[in-house]
Amino acid sequence: MSYAEFPSKALENAVNHFASLPGIGRKTAFRLVMSLLRRDRQEVAGFGESIAALHNDIVRCTVCNNISDTGICSICADDRRDRTLVCVVENIQDVMAIENTRQFRGVYHVLGGVISPVEGIKPSDLYIAGLEEKASSGTVTEIIFALSATMEGDTTNFYLYKKLGKYNVALTTLARGVAVGDELEYTDEITLGRAINNRNPYRQ
Amino acid sequence: MSYAEFPSKALENAVNHFASLPGIGRKTAFRLVMSLLRRDRQEVAGFGESIAALHNDIVRCTVCNNISDTGICSICADDRRDRTLVCVVENIQDVMAIENTRQFRGVYHVLGGVISPVEGIKPSDLYIAGLEEKASSGTVTEIIFALSATMEGDTTNFYLYKKLGKYNVALTTLARGVAVGDELEYTDEITLGRAINNRNPYRQ
Repeated sequence: MSYAEFPSKALENAVNHFASLPGIGRKTAFRLVMSLLRRDRQEVAGFGESIAALHNDIVRCTVCNNISDTGICSICADDRRDRTLVCVVENIQDVMAIENTRQFRGVYHVLGGVISPVEGIKPSDLYIAGLEEKASSGTVTEIIFALSATMEGDTTNFYLYKKLGKYNVALTTLARGVAVGDELEYTDEITLGRAINNRNPYRQ
Repeated sequence: MSYAEFPSKALENAVNHFASLPGIGRKTAFRLVMSLLRRDRQEVAGFGESIAALHNDIVRCTVCNNISDTGICSICADDRRDRTLVCVVENIQDVMAIENTRQFRGVYHVLGGVISPVEGIKPSDLYIAGLEEKASSGTVTEIIFALSATMEGDTTNFYLYKKLGKYNVALTTLARGVAVGDELEYTDEITLGRAINNRNPYRQ
């Protein structure tokens, strides 16, 4: 069923906006807008405002490029974080994923993507200048490359390594191996090969 | 991965609103908001306004209860529509579905739901008074019950029949039978039984 003719321009406008979101088709968009129409007027107005506020209220942290409500994000502003340890990630989802592990007490540096010739993302499109500044400052002792284990992630790792290797700072990457819960039978050969080569002493 | 701590209140607020929509989980909501953050500021503001406008700009047609930008919807306002023929539907999606067939030139009456003891929807929750007014007015000659072929739809049909049977107006329902494209083998017994009993002369 297509919805060629809408009974209301306002309805059509809202449906078009929802349908422009990734993974939301026109039928789903219509269903979402209809669910909003059944809701309280105040609540729906709040929804609209929360979207309009996105670009106005959210800024980039001037230190790490994470998103924030203030000029410096809550992580960079936290005195208990170790500023000599910088974890390089692709985007803010990765910051949140690592924060959720509660294993990392350093600070972050959000590149804003990875180098990808296919998608036309060049090193100059990423926030690499700021990272080089940190590496050369003398206050940072270790930089962890925490990028995706993909071709693009590896390319970016290599580029960063070439760029930052000359400074007096340790460059490390995330451990690669068999994921917790994975069955060996279904683990790919490259991961399994690396896991064997990088084996660790057994700890109970 | 849970997103317990958001780096920005504005981000969290927008994600919460998206996650409140039916069928949208927190991870999807987050992905949608991130996609908005990558977009043009103007475009995102337009999205927010389109939602805020929903309750302000959309009204119910005073004649048929369809949604509309004006007091009387475009169908009821159209002089070429046959106002002696009223099609009773559950909601505006059904109006649009029937309009898309281009087979109906009458007008509609949107009940706003069907009677459902399970969901606590009583006849008084539906726009039935307006329908009785039309039936008793003498200007309507036929009322088509075009409700879903479900228990609730059948209950509502029966209730309307009891309510409207006393007026001088023909009450009809949609034809039930094997859907176009359906294989007999997979058609349920009740549908097939009704289709046999309601068989029609063969037309080429």
